[in-house]
Amino acid sequence: MTENTNPAEPMAAEDDRAYALDRRTIAAILYAVDVGDAARLTALMEPLHQADIADLLEQMNAYDRRRLILLYGPEFDGDILTELEEGIREEVIQLLPRQILADAVRDLDSDDVVDLLEDLEAPEQEAILGALEEADRAVIEQALSYPEYSAGRLMQRECVIAPEFWTVGHAIDHMRASDGLPDSFYHVILVDPRLHPIAQVSLGAIMRSPRDRALRDLIEDQFRTIPVDQYDGDVAYAFNQYHLISAPVVDADGRLVGVITIDDAMSVLDEEHAENILRLAGVGDDSRLSDTVLETLRQRLPWLGVNLFTAALAATVIAQFEATISALVALAALMPIVASMGGNAGTQSLTVAVRALATRDLTAANAWRVVRREMAVGLLNGLSLALPLGLVTWALFGAPLLGAVIGAALVINLFVAALAGVTVPLVMDRLGVDPALASGVFVTTVTDVIGFLAFLGLATLVLL
Amino acid sequence: MTENTNPAEPMAAEDDRAYALDRRTIAAILYAVDVGDAARLTALMEPLHQADIADLLEQMNAYDRRRLILLYGPEFDGDILTELEEGIREEVIQLLPRQILADAVRDLDSDDVVDLLEDLEAPEQEAILGALEEADRAVIEQALSYPEYSAGRLMQRECVIAPEFWTVGHAIDHMRASDGLPDSFYHVILVDPRLHPIAQVSLGAIMRSPRDRALRDLIEDQFRTIPVDQYDGDVAYAFNQYHLISAPVVDADGRLVGVITIDDAMSVLDEEHAENILRLAGVGDDSRLSDTVLETLRQRLPWLGVNLFTAALAATVIAQFEATISALVALAALMPIVASMGGNAGTQSLTVAVRALATRDLTAANAWRVVRREMAVGLLNGLSLALPLGLVTWALFGAPLLGAVIGAALVINLFVAALAGVTVPLVMDRLGVDPALASGVFVTTVTDVIGFLAFLGLATLVLL
Repeated sequence: MTENTNPAEPMAAEDDRAYALDRRTIAAILYAVDVGDAARLTALMEPLHQADIADLLEQMNAYDRRRLILLYGPEFDGDILTELEEGIREEVIQLLPRQILADAVRDLDSDDVVDLLEDLEAPEQEAILGALEEADRAVIEQALSYPEYSAGRLMQRECVIAPEFWTVGHAIDHMRASDGLPDSFYHVILVDPRLHPIAQVSLGAIMRSPRDRALRDLIEDQFRTIPVDQYDGDVAYAFNQYHLISAPVVDADGRLVGVITIDDAMSVLDEEHAENILRLAGVGDDSRLSDTVLETLRQRLPWLGVNLFTAALAATVIAQFEATISALVALAALMPIVASMGGNAGTQSLTVAVRALATRDLTAANAWRVVRREMAVGLLNGLSLALPLGLVTWALFGAPLLGAVIGAALVINLFVAALAGVTVPLVMDRLGVDPALASGVFVTTVTDVIGFLAFLGLATLVLL
Repeated sequence: MTENTNPAEPMAAEDDRAYALDRRTIAAILYAVDVGDAARLTALMEPLHQADIADLLEQMNAYDRRRLILLYGPEFDGDILTELEEGIREEVIQLLPRQILADAVRDLDSDDVVDLLEDLEAPEQEAILGALEEADRAVIEQALSYPEYSAGRLMQRECVIAPEFWTVGHAIDHMRASDGLPDSFYHVILVDPRLHPIAQVSLGAIMRSPRDRALRDLIEDQFRTIPVDQYDGDVAYAFNQYHLISAPVVDADGRLVGVITIDDAMSVLDEEHAENILRLAGVGDDSRLSDTVLETLRQRLPWLGVNLFTAALAATVIAQFEATISALVALAALMPIVASMGGNAGTQSLTVAVRALATRDLTAANAWRVVRREMAVGLLNGLSLALPLGLVTWALFGAPLLGAVIGAALVINLFVAALAGVTVPLVMDRLGVDPALASGVFVTTVTDVIGFLAFLGLATLVLL
């Protein structure tokens, strides 16, 4: 590698995924760690965004990570910590000298410190809180008093307010004179004398208006406040649904306590999606790629255990038909086709329904219509595939009745799969259970049992 | 229902999902449509956000929707159209009188008009383009010339620029004097004389600074430009990874052509997740809850057809062991357990890998480590569950060797499932195929075939 190579330049040939860290940079960083060249390491890390440094740390093995942290320590930026995933974050915090940790955390916004602290064990929390000024610590402890996954944890305390009778000139003069403005803000919130937010004005609207224009003439049509105890997934939904950029957070008395900005809402939306997809697959929703073997086992084994139980249930159904299978052993080879098709069709309906429930697209207003559509689709899927399956079975086994039996069983199972795929999550949701969490097991149990029952039952009736 | 009831007030008791439309509002709206009371309908719709009106239209049946549009027509806001999903949007556009459609579209930002147009058939596109002023039409046609799903389609053309030698005072005076400022903007982009963006200054930083402060002293540390042909999913990733609020878009010569804001990136992130989860489930990624039965069938039938083929493959494996099954018919009841467990374990690994590839957490740097972890987890899952399964089988059938055979087959299949679950998407990704799209079929085919092969093969060797 020559001296003038820019290590941050993406290598299209080697890794053409936009924004992925390129291999050459990683190799150069690891080499600097190997030879213990702190100056070279710092130079290589300098152009990287903290989020990319965090990804790099997550993707290294523990041995290299430890050596890198010790070498890079004095340059360590607090924002890297906020970007790290939980397990690695604790590891890094324990590696960092106290003084460096304190400096790193002191520069962070209050919402980032809260984000950092909430996942840590008590001793690490103490280490970080101890490094903060008295006033900052009080703000953080207040934020941590709100429930986990609430708007209160997500918001920043710092916000820019103005009385509603101010003009653009008042607002600009006030902001120029203020010391404690947040790092980034997008609105001036108009409040009444009791600190209730009543409207907000975007900075863009202030910018384009003359100094004597009243703020109340510039307020946005859309104005929503967020209750401080609202679930953060609902906050993310509101930002996405109503195209909010920032929104004031209010306590039970409607008083302003903070502000949530869209970048934090976007992170929550991203995590919500990740949890949804992982739960649907029966993987613990706190699964991380850097989890150890044992952590991964702990997340996955329970669901496989549940599946073992439901698979045994399907096996007992088959066991009732041992006499039929003995008489016609070809049934044993054909029966998994019906069950597997049902499982797939059920997963299709289920995924669509779980997703639609999460986006509030499936509600009481259209539930019945969607259920009817799924039933129709299940029936038509079954009829479309029963014909080729029946004909091929007839041709291969020379038994037209066997073809008819497997075709009929397929129609029944795909109908049931579609119906179960949409009704199970609807019922779960009505019961207040996360439909992503447990619906999959129910639905595949239903399709396995019905699949084997329909095929072997019909075979017993028709063929024996 | 009494006159003073606020119909937009959420009904916690009936539908406790935050931001879902409450049933009472929906019922009142449908009643107004029934009796043809346009004034009442308008009053009921007035407090609703356009996104909620769009959801409402999506959730109604086609007959009510038609009547509502005809009654509400004159009040119809263009933003409702941009919020509607594709199928319903075309329906509504055809229902709206030309003049109302023209008025509705004329008030929209250029990126919203593009969003509206790109999914429409040519005649509807013409109808809308014809309603625009010449200049607006040129802007829209330029945007439509960029590839679908590119940054060029996502950006708005309107942006606020300044030469780098300007002061805060220059910038504010310029904005006050400008007519064509975008509705919402968050940065002033500093450009060189050839219109290359070189930095940006947040409105917040301008607000808090005195008039004589140079803009170049206020530039943000982080500055990224987006190539106009970049895939919109990568744009969304960059906004989420680097906490961008708005970013300038540049053409191949590095010249400023527009700006993308985080709210549009958030919508794309949301859609990307939806596509991922739907593809993993073998559902067409353009699936909508309001699709007709035939549209839904067209999305789902192809994947069920592929699954029918792979299930037949597994059946031929079983058919090789008909003699074994004839000799010991209990095998027929037990064999789906091994296959089903493999399918579930494979889906777990697969989902984690597909998700990690999408978030760039799984890269060449850690692929081998993750594969090793999956193999270890697969082996340990197998060993953990083989013991209870083997023991129960032994107890139920009184055959210790049968218990040993099913236990061993389970260990083999869960190991293979974990390995296939992570390697198949890695290989797909390396080949440039979306791993969410086809990995599932491969992995379950592998676990079905290996499951039946291992169990029936071992049984043939050991038990006969």
